[in-house]
Amino acid sequence: MSKRDTTIPEIKESPLFWPARLKGDVLLVLDETLIPRKLHYIKVKNTKQAVEVIRQMKTRAFGQFLVVMQTFLLEVNNSKVLSQQALCAKLRKTAERLNKSRPTFPFEEVTSLVVRWAGQAVEQNIDIRAFVPKCINGYLEGIRARRLERVRKIAGVLKDGDSVLTHCNVSGELAMAAYIAQQQNKHIHFFATETRPYFQGAKLTAWELRRMKADVTLIADNAVGSVMADGLVNKVIVGSDRSCANGDFANKIGTYQIAVLANEFGIPFYVLTQPSDKIKTGADIPVEIRNPQELLTYLNKKIVSGVVSGFYPGFDVVPHELVTEAIALDTRA
Amino acid sequence: MSKRDTTIPEIKESPLFWPARLKGDVLLVLDETLIPRKLHYIKVKNTKQAVEVIRQMKTRAFGQFLVVMQTFLLEVNNSKVLSQQALCAKLRKTAERLNKSRPTFPFEEVTSLVVRWAGQAVEQNIDIRAFVPKCINGYLEGIRARRLERVRKIAGVLKDGDSVLTHCNVSGELAMAAYIAQQQNKHIHFFATETRPYFQGAKLTAWELRRMKADVTLIADNAVGSVMADGLVNKVIVGSDRSCANGDFANKIGTYQIAVLANEFGIPFYVLTQPSDKIKTGADIPVEIRNPQELLTYLNKKIVSGVVSGFYPGFDVVPHELVTEAIALDTRA
Repeated sequence: MSKRDTTIPEIKESPLFWPARLKGDVLLVLDETLIPRKLHYIKVKNTKQAVEVIRQMKTRAFGQFLVVMQTFLLEVNNSKVLSQQALCAKLRKTAERLNKSRPTFPFEEVTSLVVRWAGQAVEQNIDIRAFVPKCINGYLEGIRARRLERVRKIAGVLKDGDSVLTHCNVSGELAMAAYIAQQQNKHIHFFATETRPYFQGAKLTAWELRRMKADVTLIADNAVGSVMADGLVNKVIVGSDRSCANGDFANKIGTYQIAVLANEFGIPFYVLTQPSDKIKTGADIPVEIRNPQELLTYLNKKIVSGVVSGFYPGFDVVPHELVTEAIALDTRA
Repeated sequence: MSKRDTTIPEIKESPLFWPARLKGDVLLVLDETLIPRKLHYIKVKNTKQAVEVIRQMKTRAFGQFLVVMQTFLLEVNNSKVLSQQALCAKLRKTAERLNKSRPTFPFEEVTSLVVRWAGQAVEQNIDIRAFVPKCINGYLEGIRARRLERVRKIAGVLKDGDSVLTHCNVSGELAMAAYIAQQQNKHIHFFATETRPYFQGAKLTAWELRRMKADVTLIADNAVGSVMADGLVNKVIVGSDRSCANGDFANKIGTYQIAVLANEFGIPFYVLTQPSDKIKTGADIPVEIRNPQELLTYLNKKIVSGVVSGFYPGFDVVPHELVTEAIALDTRA
């Protein structure tokens, strides 16, 4: 581990930081589509329900990883009478179903771990029911520690007087870094883009930054160029849904054009990454084209007239040349 | 006038092309906020009501100019018992009230014409009640002819196989040009940005292009960089709310960043301008900061949580360096 100050600032957790937790034999998944109206947790009991919350984007990004990993814990609990072999096969099937739930997400990178652990247990004749959950929980605890470490890194990037633009939502980390920065007496202003069509910036990011009493202003996605041209932004910090070996990354649609604009104005552009060697460059990332209905309607009401069609790529890819610094999850064990 | 082909293609008019017409002593103003749900015309009978439809953005851009000019006709009709002098003073007052209705719009450029005509009538002892309407109607007829001319110019810019990105709405002209292009057997595809926060692209542009049976796809404002990076766009055509002597122009928020992106990709960027020498450069254009409630709510429901603030510049300024070609209103008499 890297050396730290002896004075570690208190971290206050955002609900978006760890949005899915096992409670008994039920997985409680924060329904992010209801935020900011209410904090509601969906009860997920099996793989089918897990795939559903993922497909419906009830949870996103990191929350989806948490759901994926903990779905295996559910299936172990649900399969008390299966043999070692049969449970191993079942977990393999669970992995396949989770992998297919959303094409842009690298779920196989983590589900393959679980499949391997299950295989190991069978091979070495260890109790799969004890071993697999131990591995999964250990893995998640490690991720949790590294994410908290990254929150502190982000807080280090935030300097007194900064005005930071962010897009979509980075699952609690930016809000928690903002909280630390406040404790360090830094005055930071945030611009959150509303992030159409899902409004994650308006609904999640602005909400959680305000919960941390941060100074946040919402702007339309259209206003990014304008606030930059007016000198109102001096840093951009965004998350990434998928990172490549060469530093390219995929993130919520709109991230790419923000990166181009930041570059145009010489504004430092930071991205929170999960380093991965599985994908070489951005060209290798399949971009999910989502149902255009999500663009054409709001609150179940059509925005457009009946016959207009829409095109809704869920993500775009930012080439590493546009990234000033990647704030990576520390992957040292 | 410039030479024309002897075969002038038929022009089919879009409701957005001439959205305010005097009928008897009432000005019928197309309520653009109700499109695409219904075609409804608001009855405007005096300056107060005119200022209201402008402030509430019931009509926009060119429609506002039509409302402004024809409001003077209403006031002439409403003032049958006033002396020449008193009517002239009243029209001057009307001009002042209209000028103040929206800061970004150069209403004074046209209202000052009417004030001058009224002054002329008084000075030369011509009947102001006949002279001012004659001048206004002549002026509008001239504009109408020049706008139809510009529609033909736009159709000339559209080439077979083009995929054209547009933003916000250009008051009928692009849709009418698309109609001409179809008659000329050109296959053109359009991308319309939804244009948050008012959704003019989703509600108006996509709607009127579809009415003309054009091939149009709606995208989020966030997807502009993505579709350009994917090579799906080969031309950008936007309108301008205000043009400067040096070629800079102001248009709906988001236009600036589209111009930067088009430039990044070497995509030709066309703007429909109303040449004016009144404003030297973009730096001289005051940008209207609109009520953030328009950003924070949709269909009267809050998108964000209670305490989040918003920043909503209504326009941004595009420097002339980013413009490939200005398709100007022909101002030769």
